[in-house]
Amino acid sequence: LRTIRWEEGRVLLIDQTQLPTSVCYIECRNAQSVANAIKALQIRGAPAIGVAAAMGLALTAHNSLARTTEELSRELVQSARLLRATRPTAWNLFWAADQVMRLANGYRGDVEGLRRVVVEMAISIAEEDIAANKAMGNYGASLIRDGDVLGTVCNAGWLATAGEYGTALGAVKVAKEQGKRVSVLALETRPVLQGARLTAWELKQDGIPVRVIVDGAVGYCVSKGMVDLFIVGADRIVARDGCYVFNKVGTYTAALVARRHDVPFYVAAPFSTFDFEHGVKEVVVEEREGREVSEVAGKRVVAEGVDVFNPAFDITPPHMVDGIITERGILYPPYSVSLQRFKH
Amino acid sequence: LRTIRWEEGRVLLIDQTQLPTSVCYIECRNAQSVANAIKALQIRGAPAIGVAAAMGLALTAHNSLARTTEELSRELVQSARLLRATRPTAWNLFWAADQVMRLANGYRGDVEGLRRVVVEMAISIAEEDIAANKAMGNYGASLIRDGDVLGTVCNAGWLATAGEYGTALGAVKVAKEQGKRVSVLALETRPVLQGARLTAWELKQDGIPVRVIVDGAVGYCVSKGMVDLFIVGADRIVARDGCYVFNKVGTYTAALVARRHDVPFYVAAPFSTFDFEHGVKEVVVEEREGREVSEVAGKRVVAEGVDVFNPAFDITPPHMVDGIITERGILYPPYSVSLQRFKH
Repeated sequence: LRTIRWEEGRVLLIDQTQLPTSVCYIECRNAQSVANAIKALQIRGAPAIGVAAAMGLALTAHNSLARTTEELSRELVQSARLLRATRPTAWNLFWAADQVMRLANGYRGDVEGLRRVVVEMAISIAEEDIAANKAMGNYGASLIRDGDVLGTVCNAGWLATAGEYGTALGAVKVAKEQGKRVSVLALETRPVLQGARLTAWELKQDGIPVRVIVDGAVGYCVSKGMVDLFIVGADRIVARDGCYVFNKVGTYTAALVARRHDVPFYVAAPFSTFDFEHGVKEVVVEEREGREVSEVAGKRVVAEGVDVFNPAFDITPPHMVDGIITERGILYPPYSVSLQRFKH
Repeated sequence: LRTIRWEEGRVLLIDQTQLPTSVCYIECRNAQSVANAIKALQIRGAPAIGVAAAMGLALTAHNSLARTTEELSRELVQSARLLRATRPTAWNLFWAADQVMRLANGYRGDVEGLRRVVVEMAISIAEEDIAANKAMGNYGASLIRDGDVLGTVCNAGWLATAGEYGTALGAVKVAKEQGKRVSVLALETRPVLQGARLTAWELKQDGIPVRVIVDGAVGYCVSKGMVDLFIVGADRIVARDGCYVFNKVGTYTAALVARRHDVPFYVAAPFSTFDFEHGVKEVVVEEREGREVSEVAGKRVVAEGVDVFNPAFDITPPHMVDGIITERGILYPPYSVSLQRFKH
């Protein structure tokens, strides 16, 4: 259950655009092909693309013909630029690239040593992600009671991370391991349908009951008492202004519905998703091409010439979030205070 | 611009499942084929399926071989049963069938006379629907200011009615005729995408600027100030408990978002949509087959064996609705009071 895997000079990743109808792997041999896979959403989910960025840099390090540390460093800078330019919103991408580049910039040994430490760093970012998810799963499971139905948006499962547990869905998996009966109401999550295609498939593999609804039905389902709590993932949590959550578009809509009906709304994300550098207004909400909306399965559903607005993310303000599940514990409001406790 | 048309013993209707890629007409020669078209969503929209039901009965009356009034009456009862069984939620269907059947039951002349009055009644229900929409358009337009962006769910345009104006979109068209600059933000409205496929196409034909968004993006777009007011249609308004609005699933979600951001939320519907007979809990919310969600354009997007919950409608309570635009004027809360004023 690995989304992305390092195998001596190549990176294998599951092509998530082919799920659920087939499970295919893509082989990447350089940073460019990893960057292409990120752009095409063949790998998606903030922690997963963070790991992919690190592994893209590891490919550069491992496969480069550079003979000096300086030469390899320059190539790494190039690759990092390429990888950072793929998608603007998910913070883990920048965080992971920064981790690797800081290491490379500070490295004072020979070129073979630099290759080795970069590859090791990429592998350890993947391992730490899995460990963080497991810890998050334990904290998250404490919020789930026997018989609960958990609502979720998009896919925040193992497919969104390095593998195994996932962020939001980790809580469900650990709850199940603890013997709790738990099921999931998954919003299909247009336009790319990660909820329908990925979350439902992933949970079915794990034997966890799941029902899929269209995104618009969230109000009706919650008003009928069909959801006991929400847990969603995050692409970036802007810490400076009290934890604004950037996540897949539809999250804020679901949060409004949850609040209106007094259903707890939690976010699950590792610390690598927390952006301590920017303010909310500095973050770019990616707008993707209209074709994702105007064509479904290759068939045109919006008349030619009609405008489409296709933001990939939305922003849920801190007062709409009841808690943030991290690998160090659950943060509760006011986040400016709880974050200080957990930050280091 | 007629959704459905009577032509001496046959009914022609636009096959809305083929829009926007092609404009095809279906010819119906009996009530059964009209019922099939309603079930298959080839014609949809509460006022449109009301007109279709009346025309289905007109086909029975016109084409029957019955030789006596009694014989024809029995056939009409059969056809009415067939038509009423197509879809459970939209009230206009039952209202229109009742109109025709009350006339038939009270009729005391010969069989040829009964044929004639039933056909005339069906045609007049269609004409009255168009007149009501025009009146609603005038009232609705008074709510629209120059430069406004109107948000809407599903399709409440001429395709949802007998033709020409539509309910919610009638307001936009009249506003445009009045020289106001107005544009529309259309929610695509999964699963059947009436917003993307029908509303966008219809407005483009009319030269009214329209942008399409996925349903989940409604929270983000409204929070960014992209919508000045919402007007949606209705499939049934249950009058007894103060006007609960049954409309396409996603409406209640949008209403919650609108209220949270102080954006006015209106419903446009003729009096034929008001149910004065039932309580909210007596109304069946149609659940359609999961395949509408789990397959898009013939391609499977939800893994085999995963459950889908596919309610076609949701319920917006009266306190979430700022006004109801009817052909007799705009009702404002408390609806129990304003309804009394307009009812007769």
